Amino acid sequence: MAPHDGTLAGSGTEASGGGLAALQAAASTGEAARRLYRQGGYKGFTHGFAPGYVQANLAVLPKELAADFLRFCQLNQKPCPLIGMSPVPGDPSMPELGADLDIRTDIPMYRVWRKGELVAEVPDIRDFWREDLVAFALGCSFSFEEALVEDGLELRHQTCGVNVPMFRTGIACQPSGPFRGPMVVSMRPFRPADAIRAVQITSRFPAVHGAPVHIGLPEMIGICDINRPDYGDAVEVRADELPVFWACGVTPQAVIAAVAPELAITHAPGAMLVTDVRNSRLAAL
Amino acid sequence: MAPHDGTLAGSGTEASGGGLAALQAAASTGEAARRLYRQGGYKGFTHGFAPGYVQANLAVLPKELAADFLRFCQLNQKPCPLIGMSPVPGDPSMPELGADLDIRTDIPMYRVWRKGELVAEVPDIRDFWREDLVAFALGCSFSFEEALVEDGLELRHQTCGVNVPMFRTGIACQPSGPFRGPMVVSMRPFRPADAIRAVQITSRFPAVHGAPVHIGLPEMIGICDINRPDYGDAVEVRADELPVFWACGVTPQAVIAAVAPELAITHAPGAMLVTDVRNSRLAAL
Repeated sequence: MAPHDGTLAGSGTEASGGGLAALQAAASTGEAARRLYRQGGYKGFTHGFAPGYVQANLAVLPKELAADFLRFCQLNQKPCPLIGMSPVPGDPSMPELGADLDIRTDIPMYRVWRKGELVAEVPDIRDFWREDLVAFALGCSFSFEEALVEDGLELRHQTCGVNVPMFRTGIACQPSGPFRGPMVVSMRPFRPADAIRAVQITSRFPAVHGAPVHIGLPEMIGICDINRPDYGDAVEVRADELPVFWACGVTPQAVIAAVAPELAITHAPGAMLVTDVRNSRLAAL
Repeated sequence: MAPHDGTLAGSGTEASGGGLAALQAAASTGEAARRLYRQGGYKGFTHGFAPGYVQANLAVLPKELAADFLRFCQLNQKPCPLIGMSPVPGDPSMPELGADLDIRTDIPMYRVWRKGELVAEVPDIRDFWREDLVAFALGCSFSFEEALVEDGLELRHQTCGVNVPMFRTGIACQPSGPFRGPMVVSMRPFRPADAIRAVQITSRFPAVHGAPVHIGLPEMIGICDINRPDYGDAVEVRADELPVFWACGVTPQAVIAAVAPELAITHAPGAMLVTDVRNSRLAAL
């Protein structure tokens, strides 16, 4: 199971420019976007759909792992900000994120894993759904990135049209049952004054990774080469910039992959769960 | 006129240990501290008196300079956070900071300057007071330092028992009339995670310099040697730490000094105006 974050992957199933823009314009709310995906009208990246609404990472696990995973999220809230879960095992709804939400159909593309191996990439998981499955929705960096961009800050990976660089760190997550492993972080370079502003802005969003976990001295958290990320793409850190590191949603994905459950289902990279919750409603202030 | 910040100077008029502790215990509110100073019972540093209450820098100027200085503070709020001023020229009260406050008597020690030259250091300025004088109280770093220490962060200069290191930067203040010059900053070293926390904590206190203005790359703001501060004392920045820079109350003092007014009065270094405003009331949140 290859970990992935909620950022645009380098390759994908994106619609062509004009068609995509029309789809995005038509699906300007979370509910409209989910309806489009549910009807099979779109199978690509969700970035650009329902701007202003929270998009989330999905992890589905059998219930015998669910309690340990829930505890793992509780112990490691910065990399694993839980914003929704199945009311009971087998229930495909997630009413806190959308009244009509069906977790089996409402994401454009899923990945199905058996014992850590990718066995299917499908736009609908009703054929894989079981009464013992529990779905977890975890906040993703889209929400705080939107706030950074709205404040006028440059996101280098967006400027370069690549995936955000991500690194395994020497920071160990708090273990829970079989779930254990290092924190994965994403890195965005900023000039110092912008780095301070980025701390302020992302501090308002504890439900989507919150404030950075590190700034400026990557070797202190076990990152040997800032130009060789473990996931995503390298971006330049200029001489007048500091690398700023946020806890990353790849952390739980990598941790689940290491457990290699009998069955696990995730969103496909960049194809997120689009919710009815506005990003601003995740702000602490 | 030598600029100074609201931090303990290297030499001073501090009372001996036991006597000081007794005085501090007796003067646990701003009002009690001012009464003590007003009666001539203490002429030293104010650090340790009235814990939890705001202490402020004092600048007194003739009214023909007051409007330009007020505008200077408004244009440069981070180094010049104005928290009180004379209701009208010649009025020694400052009711927003203390009901009974008399700016001529309530500070333990003053400095009187003529054309930029120090001409007197006195515990009472009634002999120098004039109907055309306007007093300004500017927030000082004591307030945010208290919040940092309460959060468990180490302030290196306090650990070392020295004055905070301060630097002239290449950042120009916005000029107003004759008032112009570079921003002066104070520096505190922190490990990266603590630096992020320090940004969060001090962002809550915009009335006392607020969030840092810079972090990590001193040469970007014109600081060539972090071990040679322009004011205060050098402190070590360890290999696993970043230097974090805040706008400093020495900025307006240096700017006033450069103007060399016919008359100016300030507090003596470390002998601040102790107010009735609680530090927590300056918090934005």
